[in-house]
Amino acid sequence: MVKENYNSDLYRTGDTSKYLKNFLYDGKFKLQSGDILDKLNIAYETYGELSKDKSNVVLVCHAISGDSHVAKHSEDDIPGWWDIMVGPGRPIDTNNYFVICSNVIGGCKGSTGPNSINPSTGNPYGPDFPNITVEDMVNAQNLLIDHLGIKSILCVTGGSMGGFQSIQWARQFPDKIKSVIGLATSARLTNQALAFDIVGRNAIKKDPRFKEGNYYDAEEKPEDGLAIARMLAHITYVSKDSMKNKFDNTRYEPKEITTEFEKRFSVGTYLAYQGTKFVDRFDANSYITLSTAVDYFDLGGTINEIKNNLKKTKCEWLLVSFSSDWLYPPFQSEEIVDALVSLDKSVSYCSIKSEAGHDAFLLENEVEDYGLLTSSFLKKLSGKEKNDQIKNSSPTSTNIFFNNRLDLDFICSLIEKNDRVLDLGCEDGKLLDELKKKKCSKLLGVELDSKKVIMSSNKGLEVINSDINTGLKRFNDDQFDITILSQTLQSIKNVEKTIEEILRISKKAIISFPNFAFKPLREMLYNQGKAPKLEGLYGYNWYNTPNRRFPTILDFQEYCTYKKIIIKESFYIDSEKDELIKENPNLNADTAIFVLSKN
Amino acid sequence: MVKENYNSDLYRTGDTSKYLKNFLYDGKFKLQSGDILDKLNIAYETYGELSKDKSNVVLVCHAISGDSHVAKHSEDDIPGWWDIMVGPGRPIDTNNYFVICSNVIGGCKGSTGPNSINPSTGNPYGPDFPNITVEDMVNAQNLLIDHLGIKSILCVTGGSMGGFQSIQWARQFPDKIKSVIGLATSARLTNQALAFDIVGRNAIKKDPRFKEGNYYDAEEKPEDGLAIARMLAHITYVSKDSMKNKFDNTRYEPKEITTEFEKRFSVGTYLAYQGTKFVDRFDANSYITLSTAVDYFDLGGTINEIKNNLKKTKCEWLLVSFSSDWLYPPFQSEEIVDALVSLDKSVSYCSIKSEAGHDAFLLENEVEDYGLLTSSFLKKLSGKEKNDQIKNSSPTSTNIFFNNRLDLDFICSLIEKNDRVLDLGCEDGKLLDELKKKKCSKLLGVELDSKKVIMSSNKGLEVINSDINTGLKRFNDDQFDITILSQTLQSIKNVEKTIEEILRISKKAIISFPNFAFKPLREMLYNQGKAPKLEGLYGYNWYNTPNRRFPTILDFQEYCTYKKIIIKESFYIDSEKDELIKENPNLNADTAIFVLSKN
Repeated sequence: MVKENYNSDLYRTGDTSKYLKNFLYDGKFKLQSGDILDKLNIAYETYGELSKDKSNVVLVCHAISGDSHVAKHSEDDIPGWWDIMVGPGRPIDTNNYFVICSNVIGGCKGSTGPNSINPSTGNPYGPDFPNITVEDMVNAQNLLIDHLGIKSILCVTGGSMGGFQSIQWARQFPDKIKSVIGLATSARLTNQALAFDIVGRNAIKKDPRFKEGNYYDAEEKPEDGLAIARMLAHITYVSKDSMKNKFDNTRYEPKEITTEFEKRFSVGTYLAYQGTKFVDRFDANSYITLSTAVDYFDLGGTINEIKNNLKKTKCEWLLVSFSSDWLYPPFQSEEIVDALVSLDKSVSYCSIKSEAGHDAFLLENEVEDYGLLTSSFLKKLSGKEKNDQIKNSSPTSTNIFFNNRLDLDFICSLIEKNDRVLDLGCEDGKLLDELKKKKCSKLLGVELDSKKVIMSSNKGLEVINSDINTGLKRFNDDQFDITILSQTLQSIKNVEKTIEEILRISKKAIISFPNFAFKPLREMLYNQGKAPKLEGLYGYNWYNTPNRRFPTILDFQEYCTYKKIIIKESFYIDSEKDELIKENPNLNADTAIFVLSKN
Repeated sequence: MVKENYNSDLYRTGDTSKYLKNFLYDGKFKLQSGDILDKLNIAYETYGELSKDKSNVVLVCHAISGDSHVAKHSEDDIPGWWDIMVGPGRPIDTNNYFVICSNVIGGCKGSTGPNSINPSTGNPYGPDFPNITVEDMVNAQNLLIDHLGIKSILCVTGGSMGGFQSIQWARQFPDKIKSVIGLATSARLTNQALAFDIVGRNAIKKDPRFKEGNYYDAEEKPEDGLAIARMLAHITYVSKDSMKNKFDNTRYEPKEITTEFEKRFSVGTYLAYQGTKFVDRFDANSYITLSTAVDYFDLGGTINEIKNNLKKTKCEWLLVSFSSDWLYPPFQSEEIVDALVSLDKSVSYCSIKSEAGHDAFLLENEVEDYGLLTSSFLKKLSGKEKNDQIKNSSPTSTNIFFNNRLDLDFICSLIEKNDRVLDLGCEDGKLLDELKKKKCSKLLGVELDSKKVIMSSNKGLEVINSDINTGLKRFNDDQFDITILSQTLQSIKNVEKTIEEILRISKKAIISFPNFAFKPLREMLYNQGKAPKLEGLYGYNWYNTPNRRFPTILDFQEYCTYKKIIIKESFYIDSEKDELIKENPNLNADTAIFVLSKN
């Protein structure tokens, strides 16, 4: 018994919501292993109302220790594990969407699992419960969806193991689902994550009270092993920094709890508490079953393998990772993004800055960010045009167009209907939003700043959170008709590689940049002997400019000759006077726009 | 029994080297806890010969699972745990140094520990063995040092827990040791590292065969718990990337080993093997004793606390961290460095790029780097001037002085005897090496590139591996007479902050930079309309320059006026002609040297 509570408890203990429903499938359920389950119970809950055309279904998939109770149904209901995301007015707004969440098979929260009665023996399955895969979980959920008379799901979403199920839905039922939102997930576990799971399972199996899984009749359950597995897993759910913030000030002041585990150090009693609490609400056989299913989920270890596994998917994708998540690190979400991009699927991606580690997707800290990404994405899907106002959405000082719209208008005029367009450094999506009018066949942005990715997404745009300097290799040869690099050249680290990549992935490139040989800039250096400076992108002092290079029109032309790049068109602008420059542009234009193609 | 061996085994199994010696201390040994051990055995080994003046002693401290057998004594000896570092011709060269390594008390490799016979009962101590601290380990080692008639130790070194002991030596016997080399160590564990240790100990203590530590008479030992603790610890010793490289290609091809632990996945059998092998050579009570000692080692969680604990140390320091070490991450070594710098102690630091994780200090991969750092440091200490030739030590293209020595000579001429000098961006240490002739009272370099830090160290210089943009806050107000920023200004990210910091930490600053208003550069932009370029630091193309800003002499003068910085002296050079410029320097000089002081 634990005396004292910690604030951060995410989950209830054993209680069951009175809103829990059960669906009994009275047939034979064939598993991926070939084994068959006679009858199947699926515990589930629903929120909101199914629309007449049944087009508003959101299926939420839970993580390893979750259950069907994703949120409160009413004020007097017990808390749900994702109350911050699901409910009236929440990002997954139950006023608009019909939300379904079911306990996975193999679990221990109502759906058939190792602690269920085996109809053929009258006793709990225990160790005889067959191996379950993520595919089996999805097949079971699909039975429920069929039972509810639903033909099409607007969105399947979940984090961690819930992300695995969401991805698996896209693979298994490509025609049934419109979209996936995968949070803090991956194509498969890293070997490090696998290793932690293995040690956890070994701890359970080596608990003498585990008795090879035959403990349901016994007085004592394998609580020590399960608690140790949970403690270990808990470390991997949070970040080094969040542990520091939580425990550094009270390092030697453990809370007074009753436990047989070590009570030194505040982090020690916290772990003891987490472990002890977990055994009250979870079944050891179920933990082994589910963690093994997680470990075997595998879309591949290379982009090509992942591509092969996602080839037949048809849905739109949103993937969200968290910077401090070291269990499902951002690079793993990016592997999925790379595969989807390379398959030319519709995908958005954001890596949210967070200190909370893997658990971030369950916590309030960053819910404003991933909540807004989720709600924008759902609204785009359901065709609701107007999105939420973002706080501080006023144009930032780094807005690429300042107050001058000439080169934006110019670039827009160069784009044609049905063009596939990639905008590198798309900022808050202003140019792409403008291009929506053009009926392009593809509009995609790349942006480094996650906050701007969220702003772009809120305009209903498809954006990938990535660094131009390293993130272009994910695109295929000639995947786009036009790639735009607007007023970004002067701050790019690796110019040669970037331009080479742009001309690999698109037929044409539109590159605009401020001209360093513009007359007033030249004169400033020549006559005054000072580092050139002029309102606009060269409006910084030598000591605080974010620009790292200073190309002139002539330099750029010579560069193209040297690299055998064809300049198809070029436009030179005096943005102050808002006019096109024909005569001696390298002297008279402050901005250049080049349309390039490869040799 | 494990059938198959893995290649990467670092440690032998239970065997003992025939060269092991024992020192029996026949008195009462008082522990930090107040407890007393009656008699004490210290198992130790020595290598090389003690010099006549006894000035060549290197004490090596082992990590948690190590022992006194640091290296082979002869070809037919069993392997040591640090053969790559200790031996004839090795970085800790036993032809020059007399190396001592002893098993820590509380251990199980010959020194008194929980499995030793308690003289007062005639039975093993078991759970009655008192709590041991790192201080106790050092006190015991000191008994051995006294016994060997040694009054002064040239260097105490070790990694991980061995680093803790080394640091503790500096605190406890400040007059007895000349230096510390601490590898992959810290001022204390992170809460994350603490958490892993706690889970490991819980696994041991909950093994029913542990019997609260009274298992020595029993047929079965708490092998499952100890193996699980070891598996878990092993995960933390290696990096995510090294696990990927080791296991990704054979993920589903576990080796055929005989074990009761889970045999799924290649990483699983590897862990099972590591765990199983460990119980053959280690004692569970000892593991608990030592890991608890590690957990309580604590120099503080803030720089000020660490400073307080290191205030009375008198030795020279070398700290080495490894980039992928997430158990003792580089930032923790840097905390110690910050404290030592702020205490004005002599300290060098290098963060070595490595994929190997915490174990890097035991592995061959990066031994060339940390071996050279170690040997250079030892040679500097023992006054041996000539250091090793470094491979590829020819001047690199980024050498700040190219072939021109004028501004180097100039800067040297501005430094006086007894000056305390800091060189920011010291590269391979050329300037500092030159300044040695000046008999300065302090010469310290800061350099971002770890390879250049190693080159500087090899010149016998004191260098800190750090980023100028963020690493100056560790220095105290007026800690130096002169700080030099030579030909680095143009590539600095945060100029304002850097100059502000320089003038905080030193009375005077010498800043040299290439002048962007030099006539040929002006003319190139003005007449040709091209981004200025000239042999030397502005000798790059606009698209591949590492420079990120382009100051002129006039700009810099105006900046000083604006920031109320006093220009005490200024020198302008035409480095091509090798002459000083008096007339219109902003037009005629390609290089400027400013001597600044604060207002």
